[in-house]
Amino acid sequence: MKFCVIGLGIFGTNLARILTQLGAEVLAADRDPDRVDALKDEVAHALILDASDAKALRQLPLHDMDAVIVAIGEDFESSILATAHLHELGIPNLICRSINSTHGRLLELLKVPKIILPERMAADRTARSLMLGRVNDAVAISADFDIVELPVPDHLVGRSLQAASLRDRYRLNLITIKRHSSTSTPDTPRFDVLGIIPPTHIFDSSDILLLFGKEVDIRRFLKD
Amino acid sequence: MKFCVIGLGIFGTNLARILTQLGAEVLAADRDPDRVDALKDEVAHALILDASDAKALRQLPLHDMDAVIVAIGEDFESSILATAHLHELGIPNLICRSINSTHGRLLELLKVPKIILPERMAADRTARSLMLGRVNDAVAISADFDIVELPVPDHLVGRSLQAASLRDRYRLNLITIKRHSSTSTPDTPRFDVLGIIPPTHIFDSSDILLLFGKEVDIRRFLKD
Repeated sequence: MKFCVIGLGIFGTNLARILTQLGAEVLAADRDPDRVDALKDEVAHALILDASDAKALRQLPLHDMDAVIVAIGEDFESSILATAHLHELGIPNLICRSINSTHGRLLELLKVPKIILPERMAADRTARSLMLGRVNDAVAISADFDIVELPVPDHLVGRSLQAASLRDRYRLNLITIKRHSSTSTPDTPRFDVLGIIPPTHIFDSSDILLLFGKEVDIRRFLKD
Repeated sequence: MKFCVIGLGIFGTNLARILTQLGAEVLAADRDPDRVDALKDEVAHALILDASDAKALRQLPLHDMDAVIVAIGEDFESSILATAHLHELGIPNLICRSINSTHGRLLELLKVPKIILPERMAADRTARSLMLGRVNDAVAISADFDIVELPVPDHLVGRSLQAASLRDRYRLNLITIKRHSSTSTPDTPRFDVLGIIPPTHIFDSSDILLLFGKEVDIRRFLKD
């Protein structure tokens, strides 16, 4: 797959790098030569480009891309100009990072098909983990439902998944189990994921559970 | 629960706001009076504070907090100084945002128990959704396993969950299903989450699936 990432701050640089690691061909662009230089050995193409310049944008093979991502995170004017130009060029899969709420409203008026707010995405995930105390990580599915990662509570150790009857007793769905792998160290923890868990699985004290359910049910499960 | 958020950029402001919305008592601090002013009506306490000043930090009730989060995202020096001071004060639940890789290594040397990189967190999620094409959203569980959100493929519509046998046929675990709610509009989409799905569920063309599995199995499922 092919992607163009415009704006190589921390978010854009990470996005270009991760897409490449996942196997994509990435064209990364920024007007700052240092940022382009820092990334150039890690992506397929890196170039110095002022994305607020319509002429410069038109010279890129943007219609060959699976998506074009405007990842600019600081310069409001550049972000809006680049987005407006890309809109005019009729790029179908356009994704824009919103810098603040005014910027977000402008992007909505420009009918940008996908708007992302990296800081809010990460803040939401961090806030949910913090509120659930012993939970390592949490992702919101809706206002009520979360996916959480947490160490197995003592009351489950030595019991089977079937006997624990998480669905009936707590209205929770066990998604999978993670365990520290043999190469794991305190400084660089590594995990094995056990995949789909059979009903005969016996919970071990080193199990880390991934659960889906309502926050209220997760709390009840933790208290038991 | 009580939290202190130091540094009110986009990430810190969102974190303080979401924690408050989830029911926490938040003390939010920044040295910029405008940022403090913008947030003051939305959190329990907001104050102007230079977190690189050890004396100022010592006057805060930090030992009463469930966690103290250094969310500073731009000023390397302030972030390191604040972290070092908090470390000396013996704050047990200290969480620090890493600004770049040098900063991250320093935080590791300071034995900060939890280091977060909001931009990388969000970039990872965005990259995985992009790579899976028709997928709306994706969260990495490990190098191999993802949780993805995607519209129901045509080949499942009208069939039951039991008949689809996602576990046996694709090694995928259906976590839940989302549907556009009656108050949903194209501009502000709203979803109902169906909770734990019974085997008798009949897939509807408006179903949005949340699936857990390996990327390779998700691709196979999408192609069928």
